[in-house]
Amino acid sequence: MEDKSISLQTLRRLPVYLHYLKHIREEYTSVSATFIADKLGLNNVQVRKDLAAVSGSGRPKTGYFTDELILQIEKYLGCESGTKAVLVGAGNLGKALVSYGGFADYGIDVICAFDNDPEVYGKSIGTKPILPVEKMDEFFGKEQVKLGIITVPMAQAQGVCDKLVELGIKAIWNFAPTIVRVPQGVVAENENLASSLAVLSKHLQNIDI
Amino acid sequence: MEDKSISLQTLRRLPVYLHYLKHIREEYTSVSATFIADKLGLNNVQVRKDLAAVSGSGRPKTGYFTDELILQIEKYLGCESGTKAVLVGAGNLGKALVSYGGFADYGIDVICAFDNDPEVYGKSIGTKPILPVEKMDEFFGKEQVKLGIITVPMAQAQGVCDKLVELGIKAIWNFAPTIVRVPQGVVAENENLASSLAVLSKHLQNIDI
Repeated sequence: MEDKSISLQTLRRLPVYLHYLKHIREEYTSVSATFIADKLGLNNVQVRKDLAAVSGSGRPKTGYFTDELILQIEKYLGCESGTKAVLVGAGNLGKALVSYGGFADYGIDVICAFDNDPEVYGKSIGTKPILPVEKMDEFFGKEQVKLGIITVPMAQAQGVCDKLVELGIKAIWNFAPTIVRVPQGVVAENENLASSLAVLSKHLQNIDI
Repeated sequence: MEDKSISLQTLRRLPVYLHYLKHIREEYTSVSATFIADKLGLNNVQVRKDLAAVSGSGRPKTGYFTDELILQIEKYLGCESGTKAVLVGAGNLGKALVSYGGFADYGIDVICAFDNDPEVYGKSIGTKPILPVEKMDEFFGKEQVKLGIITVPMAQAQGVCDKLVELGIKAIWNFAPTIVRVPQGVVAENENLASSLAVLSKHLQNIDI
């Protein structure tokens, strides 16, 4: 199912390049891998390999045309695919994610949020409505949704994940502090914020000693 | 600086175990590595190794006492250290993070947020005040802050990071979609949400083909 020609680590770095290139496109019409590596504090050889995977080798001396490289990365990442997504769990983090501008850059449109709290039914996050979880079956009957974002408490995460998979979701982005399991053919990214906190906390503890 | 006896990957999994153990402590007074591995969908051998690193081998048949294991992981992660943190960038994501309950579990107290928008000065996120960035020097003169959380746009991230390091911050948690660079002795976790989106988007694209 995965593209064999590129590593997961390269894939994870492509958005960083993309974001940076968009940021400098007005100022620099062409860029070299070395320049990008230097500006982003990454390894030169690594950047060269990453870019070669999506765009071939840069031209000697000048490197890549910035606009062309942006288009190639976007194409590679499927940024124009127009993928519909829903979010389950309209708490603080859910709201922040729905409001997060980054989705559109990847061709992902979060069309609504679901929640089980009657207090928030009928409300909205920006222009996205918050619907009762009971309406999920009906909603998925009408909309082709492929990505599900989970921002519910840990105890509900696997249940919500199973429900989303049952409704035809092919990709899960889980923010609950647990690892959700998905059947083959479905991919899950478990975004555990606490893991980063643990790394930072441990580092600070070592400094204290 | 880092504890050599444990890998970064193990460290990242410890919060997942911790959260799960707290969740089941009422129900199960003892747990085995196999049980945890099964419930969290992780590899049995991996979980056994991870737990052995912080708690030694479990007892034959019964495994670990749940409460004891919780305490050992908490101690290992420095959860009772009472570390003060500040956040820079009080937008949606910043607000979500300050409101996020998970910090206290790691002994981290986000004491305030800084922002450069006069509209939000004097406001607060829950009980945490939002202060002008110009007040940072004064604030750090009075408070011993060790962790800085960056939720500003990409273009400002490195500048904010440099400022925090200058003020004595030893750990940076960066949510801006770029990689911030820190000097030796300071650790940075770059939490790139877009990287996960890229992985999911690419997966969906492959399914479409």
